[in-house]
Amino acid sequence: MITQLSRRSFLAAAALAAGAAAWPRRTLAAAPLATAQGPAAYRYRLGDFQLTALYDGTWFLPIDGKFVTNASGAEVNEALAAAFLPPDIMPISITALLVNTGSKLVLIDCGSAGQIADTAGFLNANLAAAGHTPDDIDIILISHLHPDHINGLRTKDGGKVFPNAQILVPEPEWTFWMDDGNQSRATGSVLGYFRNARRIFADIAKDVQRFKPGAEIVPGIVAVPAYGHTPGHTAFSVQSGTQSMLVMSDTVRNPELFARHPDWQPIFDMDGALAVTTRRRMLDRAAADRMLVGAYHFPFPACGHMIKTATGYELVPSMWRPL
Amino acid sequence: MITQLSRRSFLAAAALAAGAAAWPRRTLAAAPLATAQGPAAYRYRLGDFQLTALYDGTWFLPIDGKFVTNASGAEVNEALAAAFLPPDIMPISITALLVNTGSKLVLIDCGSAGQIADTAGFLNANLAAAGHTPDDIDIILISHLHPDHINGLRTKDGGKVFPNAQILVPEPEWTFWMDDGNQSRATGSVLGYFRNARRIFADIAKDVQRFKPGAEIVPGIVAVPAYGHTPGHTAFSVQSGTQSMLVMSDTVRNPELFARHPDWQPIFDMDGALAVTTRRRMLDRAAADRMLVGAYHFPFPACGHMIKTATGYELVPSMWRPL
Repeated sequence: MITQLSRRSFLAAAALAAGAAAWPRRTLAAAPLATAQGPAAYRYRLGDFQLTALYDGTWFLPIDGKFVTNASGAEVNEALAAAFLPPDIMPISITALLVNTGSKLVLIDCGSAGQIADTAGFLNANLAAAGHTPDDIDIILISHLHPDHINGLRTKDGGKVFPNAQILVPEPEWTFWMDDGNQSRATGSVLGYFRNARRIFADIAKDVQRFKPGAEIVPGIVAVPAYGHTPGHTAFSVQSGTQSMLVMSDTVRNPELFARHPDWQPIFDMDGALAVTTRRRMLDRAAADRMLVGAYHFPFPACGHMIKTATGYELVPSMWRPL
Repeated sequence: MITQLSRRSFLAAAALAAGAAAWPRRTLAAAPLATAQGPAAYRYRLGDFQLTALYDGTWFLPIDGKFVTNASGAEVNEALAAAFLPPDIMPISITALLVNTGSKLVLIDCGSAGQIADTAGFLNANLAAAGHTPDDIDIILISHLHPDHINGLRTKDGGKVFPNAQILVPEPEWTFWMDDGNQSRATGSVLGYFRNARRIFADIAKDVQRFKPGAEIVPGIVAVPAYGHTPGHTAFSVQSGTQSMLVMSDTVRNPELFARHPDWQPIFDMDGALAVTTRRRMLDRAAADRMLVGAYHFPFPACGHMIKTATGYELVPSMWRPL
């Protein structure tokens, strides 16, 4: 019976069906296909807080065997295949987290604003699906200054997207990217990141607040140093009542690669060895304490738990449920 | 650094932050919390077809150690804990699948219509989020006659929900549930299912078309016998162009229990031994052929792939992506 699932058997089954009189009798107009994905805003509770995962889209990055500095293209393709993903393309999913503390709307990182790929830039559409406008956002926490985390602050033509939001960035991250000497030594994509950070922040630098990783920066949200991916890369611990969540930012990135192979170093990790140390420490802790975790590049809705395996870690995605 | 994630360290970090001057300066009105989950309708392509997963909700069934007939309550709770789910409650997620063939809108099973739990019954809201009304549905395929699969055909007061839809049910399923002798021998919840099936179908029986599992019942959709869960329980193979998907209906149910432990028999499987045989055969085939699969009780969006492990099978959920 189950063998009818092959193409050949499918056709055989179709032939058998010819006399089955089960064909639709009515003839309706053709059903038009939708042209875009539906809304992607997922709410869940954390103590007295309400969290909303806001999908920005997915950047399909052609990698040509060069995404992981210490694994071969074949090994990476094998890891992609194990996750039922096609070879040679890294799907970089982007999901920002909105934290409603009951008194403040806090957005952690803010999407790519369509400035990286046509297949990403839907954050504000999904913010609208969640019932908010950019005007509503009180505070934006930035984990680090890579373009996919900060471009959402600006429209393509430079307009401010979140006019009422205070913007908070990690002090060491700000210091690194705003240092002219550091920029003068940068090349390639990293030089692009320097220029982009200045494009985003140039005329609002005086209004950007810098925080020290380790501090509670908003009531209920502690910044957690997670250096390596960038010099000041920061995770966040969100706590309300007896519940907490570790927002890992880019510490793990794609779980099918870097949770399963925590020693692999993606080209985007500026200090690969330090990033591995940070990744392993955070994954160890998350798994041992069965912590609820979120991460910017985990598949939407980008929340779940980590378990330790014989060779690495696995993401157990949260099960979609009513609020 | 990472050790700041404990409650104690969180407070310590908060104390450290007292002088950090990173507190918001503005005071805005309190941010109201949302009262319901956002839309849950996920589109994906299958050849020339467009599929939409439509979330109906989750029925949180208290199980009191009695959900699996051949495993102890402790073993089941252990399996729930491994999936980061609380003990003694079975989260029965419900997701129907809409297939747009380009000429027909085909709905496979149709939700619970709020007639089983307050936390389910959102299918039509999510159908609206996907841009359709119940009037648009051309064909409804029923996998089997359990209430959570057929109640969506009727409002609580008996109205027809999909006025233009042809309803197709598996012949052996119809024969079993509509047999008065079978009903006379039924007790408990099964007797309830008999009565419910008659409530749903009583005055439309002559319009319900019966199909033979094994036949192609709609162009591109073959009914696949998957008996055991109920006497005529049916899966569906959907095929367009070179792509196909196996819609497993209730063959596996909750993957964290019955994919990982394929020999476990849930109380809802009417012929537990046959259901195990069917489950193992289907999972073996899905894993070996790396088939795209869907299932009514998999976590929304209820699609992915199955892999074989040393002791059972694992669901690899599809990664959310733009259309």
